[in-house]
Amino acid sequence: MAKSKYEYVKEFETDDRLLRNVYILVRIDGKGFHKFSAAHQFHKPNDVLALSLMNHAARCVMHELDDILLAFGESDEYSFLFRRSTDLYERRQAKIVSTVVSLFTSAYVYYWRDYFPDKNRPLYPPIFDGRAILYPSEAEVKDYFAWRQADTHINNLYNTSFWALVENGGLTPKAAENRLSGTDSKAKNEMLFTEFNTNYSKLPAIFRKGSVLLRESVPKDQDKNAIIPILPETLPGSTSATAVPQLTPGQTSS
Amino acid sequence: MAKSKYEYVKEFETDDRLLRNVYILVRIDGKGFHKFSAAHQFHKPNDVLALSLMNHAARCVMHELDDILLAFGESDEYSFLFRRSTDLYERRQAKIVSTVVSLFTSAYVYYWRDYFPDKNRPLYPPIFDGRAILYPSEAEVKDYFAWRQADTHINNLYNTSFWALVENGGLTPKAAENRLSGTDSKAKNEMLFTEFNTNYSKLPAIFRKGSVLLRESVPKDQDKNAIIPILPETLPGSTSATAVPQLTPGQTSS
Amino acid sequence: MAKSKYEYVKEFETDDRLLRNVYILVRIDGKGFHKFSAAHQFHKPNDVLALSLMNHAARCVMHELDDILLAFGESDEYSFLFRRSTDLYERRQAKIVSTVVSLFTSAYVYYWRDYFPDKNRPLYPPIFDGRAILYPSEAEVKDYFAWRQADTHINNLYNTSFWALVENGGLTPKAAENRLSGTDSKAKNEMLFTEFNTNYSKLPAIFRKGSVLLRESVPKDQDKNAIIPILPETLPGSTSATAVPQLTPGQTSS
Amino acid sequence: MAKSKYEYVKEFETDDRLLRNVYILVRIDGKGFHKFSAAHQFHKPNDVLALSLMNHAARCVMHELDDILLAFGESDEYSFLFRRSTDLYERRQAKIVSTVVSLFTSAYVYYWRDYFPDKNRPLYPPIFDGRAILYPSEAEVKDYFAWRQADTHINNLYNTSFWALVENGGLTPKAAENRLSGTDSKAKNEMLFTEFNTNYSKLPAIFRKGSVLLRESVPKDQDKNAIIPILPETLPGSTSATAVPQLTPGQTSS
Repeated sequence: MAKSKYEYVKEFETDDRLLRNVYILVRIDGKGFHKFSAAHQFHKPNDVLALSLMNHAARCVMHELDDILLAFGESDEYSFLFRRSTDLYERRQAKIVSTVVSLFTSAYVYYWRDYFPDKNRPLYPPIFDGRAILYPSEAEVKDYFAWRQADTHINNLYNTSFWALVENGGLTPKAAENRLSGTDSKAKNEMLFTEFNTNYSKLPAIFRKGSVLLRESVPKDQDKNAIIPILPETLPGSTSATAVPQLTPGQTSS
Repeated sequence: MAKSKYEYVKEFETDDRLLRNVYILVRIDGKGFHKFSAAHQFHKPNDVLALSLMNHAARCVMHELDDILLAFGESDEYSFLFRRSTDLYERRQAKIVSTVVSLFTSAYVYYWRDYFPDKNRPLYPPIFDGRAILYPSEAEVKDYFAWRQADTHINNLYNTSFWALVENGGLTPKAAENRLSGTDSKAKNEMLFTEFNTNYSKLPAIFRKGSVLLRESVPKDQDKNAIIPILPETLPGSTSATAVPQLTPGQTSS
Repeated sequence: MAKSKYEYVKEFETDDRLLRNVYILVRIDGKGFHKFSAAHQFHKPNDVLALSLMNHAARCVMHELDDILLAFGESDEYSFLFRRSTDLYERRQAKIVSTVVSLFTSAYVYYWRDYFPDKNRPLYPPIFDGRAILYPSEAEVKDYFAWRQADTHINNLYNTSFWALVENGGLTPKAAENRLSGTDSKAKNEMLFTEFNTNYSKLPAIFRKGSVLLRESVPKDQDKNAIIPILPETLPGSTSATAVPQLTPGQTSS
Repeated sequence: MAKSKYEYVKEFETDDRLLRNVYILVRIDGKGFHKFSAAHQFHKPNDVLALSLMNHAARCVMHELDDILLAFGESDEYSFLFRRSTDLYERRQAKIVSTVVSLFTSAYVYYWRDYFPDKNRPLYPPIFDGRAILYPSEAEVKDYFAWRQADTHINNLYNTSFWALVENGGLTPKAAENRLSGTDSKAKNEMLFTEFNTNYSKLPAIFRKGSVLLRESVPKDQDKNAIIPILPETLPGSTSATAVPQLTPGQTSS
């Protein structure tokens, strides 16, 4: 059989193992989710069902891959933190990233109908992409999550203000954009309060601060490595403070 | 706002752009598909519906990514060949691999019910992983596909013989394995013919030679031993017929 | 002995083998050679002895490493082209680059006294750095050398003009710079001819076009792989046209 | 000018910046130094002048590159440790490795005549190669140096015993090899003491433990960043993990 004659092509495969003893962070992002959200009429500025489906898919990833310590989600992105010492797939980059992305996507489509029962499946298959980033120290990991959570805050305050102006204020999108241009966080908070009777800080934490999943010790009569969905409000004083990098909420306020 | 304080963490992202002007090959593989196939009672040695779903998912990938010239599938794996000059995502490796894997997975779950209507969705979300390999010359690309097709042939002849012995010959799996140990292709062909009245070369080409998707029309007078294209006319037409590496069929016969 | 206890640190070494079947190009550059040239009073705009020493060091590299096909030098840089199929050091990048740089540097210091006999050794140890670049096709290799040779031409015409103005024209460096600012090749040629009686095209080719070393077949009674220093003038019609990428001289004239 | 037409070849250069905030270790090795030592009749088992020249070259590297904290040498190899935070050459791997190797080689040839005045220069240019390795934590860095120092000990005890048998015991090299085969450290120590009247632990530390260079604070009336050669005796015993130079940051402040 001629098979062996061709096997030299395997020698073009490269070794992409990631440096040992550093944190591996995999971040996935929805591709074209502006269009995907519009096509499925996701509620603006946040759709709690869509976010819950994201969280469900992320939990599936954590259930499958034991070495993920923590995950953080906002909008159409999710970040997964692997333990420093993980030897998953010998730390091969493409294998790790592609497995996370595939499982997340698979679960997103699979569980769609549990969140949108009238639609059964999306109008078309959604796509996510992913990448791995290495962080040598815990300080950088904390700052990574602080960065993503600050991003959540900034985007959500803007979007909440924008859609208040458009949907309740009767402005055109263009006019709303102009109105918000150059305003700081304080101005947006006041506008929401005085014009739309909205106390921004009372909005659901999942919108303002994103979602956090963390793997924690639980009582022995339960599953050993249960994944505890953390209500974002509880993040700062979480009982898991010693187990995983903390997200210090004060850092994200303007 | 504190966001900028954390943005230094972006500097840990690395540039993973692939060398220019070489072929990019992305191969995806099902993860744990031995178990997945058993759980869904896929027909042995080949399940035409499962293979058709693989082909459907691969077509979705080709529809989305114009720079894929050719795809080859067998069992639970699929290989996608990008044109040398592609500048998709600036040739960023993780972006390309993760997008292909995500879309393939998404389509596999999405279209499942069109192939297995009584089940609506699989028993659990399937996972694929992926990797990129670079090939500088057309000769290596041809040999890559010859390698995968030789693999298809070897595996399928073995599996066809094995399941004939088990399902029609009444042997235990262990006995079938012993019977086939050390036999060459010719012996297996003769056994199938004399003992099971099966002319191996008349079995469907999709089982013996895998599936090929080309971004072009296939000439009607193509050699009968050639790889059988799967519904090539349903793929977007391309004027670049000569740009696609051809698989020379003679190379894969034993 | 405790040695084995520490050997895990070897696992942090990464595999840096370069893609197979593409050209490997190693370019080295003098570090701080503006200062080095001034300290040793190299003749301006070109010092034929300093260039000859560069060429000598490059020949040593080619003698040691059989898989180098061609080398091109100008000023304080040299480029070495390895054959596509080389398996030198299993194509390990750091090993290849560091060996070329070390040998070049070693030879430069070692043979210094043969070119500057009154000085015996330089005033301080010179340093070169290096890098590897991959080129998949012959077309890119040709264009690489055309690029370096065009660079030689541009720099040398400028420098020749500049030093004519300063040394023979009595201008200050600043005045010379201003005089040349914005002038094209034709203007510089005319200025050299009319004001300094210099026909630029008659200057030594080594100044105008750099130096080329190539490995060529020679008659059997000589060493099999002698390195032939090619006079740059003869480059276009070189007898080695089929053996190595040609440098087409017409491409480099303005 | 046609230069810009070729500049696309620059796009084939890749970004090889090393991960931030991890230690960069560059190790260089002599190429073919068994032959080089024999050709120059270096004293067996150790040549103090040859080792001193290695140390001199390493000091040159440390003088040039401020971000090297520590260097360790044995036989024909030297390891250089950069501070975690170094941004030398934007942490570009090829640039860092090639510069260290080039400077070391240059200094080795340059200062040769100061150690071997009767020879003026070596018989031929010596070559070193080099590589970079990343270590995320201080523990790994300590174990790296413990590993190299254990290697020094093992090799030197063997070589000392071997040459005692050959030069003073009258054995052939083959007979000496057989005599030592399978012996442990204790047996070699005893043999040296009883048969050759040599107390191994009294031999010069530079032979038994290698050479260490470290950048240390010095009195203000001296150069700010003087490099202090550390007598190997001052290193703790090599059998413990604490046997290596400490990386206490205070040592590097002036």
